[in-house]
Amino acid sequence: MPNIKLTLEYDGTRYHGWQRQPAEATIQGVLEENLKRITGEKITVIGAGRTDAGVHAEGQAANFKTRARLSPSAWQKALNSLLPEDIVVRKAEPVSERFHARYSATGKIYRYHILNHPHRIAIRRQYQWVVYPTLNLSKMRAALRTLCGRHDFSAFQAGPVMKPTRSSICTIKRLSLSKTHDEILFTMEADRFLHQMARTIVGTVVEVGRGKRSPFEVMEILQSKDRSRAGQTAPPQGLFLIEVQY
Amino acid sequence: MPNIKLTLEYDGTRYHGWQRQPAEATIQGVLEENLKRITGEKITVIGAGRTDAGVHAEGQAANFKTRARLSPSAWQKALNSLLPEDIVVRKAEPVSERFHARYSATGKIYRYHILNHPHRIAIRRQYQWVVYPTLNLSKMRAALRTLCGRHDFSAFQAGPVMKPTRSSICTIKRLSLSKTHDEILFTMEADRFLHQMARTIVGTVVEVGRGKRSPFEVMEILQSKDRSRAGQTAPPQGLFLIEVQY
Repeated sequence: MPNIKLTLEYDGTRYHGWQRQPAEATIQGVLEENLKRITGEKITVIGAGRTDAGVHAEGQAANFKTRARLSPSAWQKALNSLLPEDIVVRKAEPVSERFHARYSATGKIYRYHILNHPHRIAIRRQYQWVVYPTLNLSKMRAALRTLCGRHDFSAFQAGPVMKPTRSSICTIKRLSLSKTHDEILFTMEADRFLHQMARTIVGTVVEVGRGKRSPFEVMEILQSKDRSRAGQTAPPQGLFLIEVQY
Repeated sequence: MPNIKLTLEYDGTRYHGWQRQPAEATIQGVLEENLKRITGEKITVIGAGRTDAGVHAEGQAANFKTRARLSPSAWQKALNSLLPEDIVVRKAEPVSERFHARYSATGKIYRYHILNHPHRIAIRRQYQWVVYPTLNLSKMRAALRTLCGRHDFSAFQAGPVMKPTRSSICTIKRLSLSKTHDEILFTMEADRFLHQMARTIVGTVVEVGRGKRSPFEVMEILQSKDRSRAGQTAPPQGLFLIEVQY
């Protein structure tokens, strides 16, 4: 049976996240509805990451199996003509039957946008977290360095650990910060991310940038494996899933 | 009676433009409602420019007269605590009783954002016009040069001239184009702009960039004073009122 991989861009503002829910608009739900309109089949779309409500994607990956035999560009055109304006298929391609968007992924890149600005904003507010006063970037970079590498990230995982058998060990390959005018970008690359891990890292490191915590404290939080010691979860609208690696 | 000038940022996506309308959400309407909540007075807010539905502002100017005596920062805080998230007061300041946001203005700066990109986009789609194929910038700049200076811009005014006694002569001080990656910015500065003039200039010059018209034809259109000869009106979501000069 053909297995189709999609690369997706979406604006998460209007959605209750990726995962299908009975009464709420979700990215997976909208994709499955429109695939049903195209194929007549009841199709399950598997996403690489279950982005939360309000989180965006420039390069989410997903796959689905179907009996329909369309060319890659026909899948892309058919979906893009039906999907709402805040979801776009950037690429469609045939993949081997064993490809699974979640289990086959070997890494992900997230980006987080902060506006380091004294007032709330109207323009592009859906895509940034506004933080003030001016953050100390060199302290933030020092904190990020302590998180790079292979660690147990339980302290940066949302809520109680839902599946105690699942490992909370991840390898962070890159955590970098850049600033242009008053815009700060976090780039985060890891083999996998626990639930809300990217946003909890950003929220905690912003507290270092504000001077409320030291970079050394971030290492202690990591070692404690205790979520209650980490900082606030940064709001969803600043987070973008940029790329899924295979 | 105190006369207060406001500098406003807003995202025009949800609004039927600046001007108050009985049954529709407008920027002026929302400001007047909230000023009534603060002062108890029925206040008229005068805007420097009546931005159309979907057009944004980073620096719209407005003024209103009131009996209430608040400090500038108290006006700003009181309004920002009440206004919806897509309207922000960036500055409030007392001005002379003769200041009139529209009649006192000596110039305006608009910016127009184009994404020169082959596919529709989900992220930031509210703030850009997506145009393809790749536009020829040097031809567009040649067309813009013919429009600079003092001319009768009837050919670039929306619809029938509504007030035939009103002059359609404007002085364009600056029309510049810049490109970063696939983003093209038009910056337009003039003593005044006729209705939809900025968007009609952009729409016409994009046709030059596509190769459908020559730069010379833009000069002919200007001289014809005939709106039917100009190009399409560029869509509203790419346009930002950046600054009003006094």
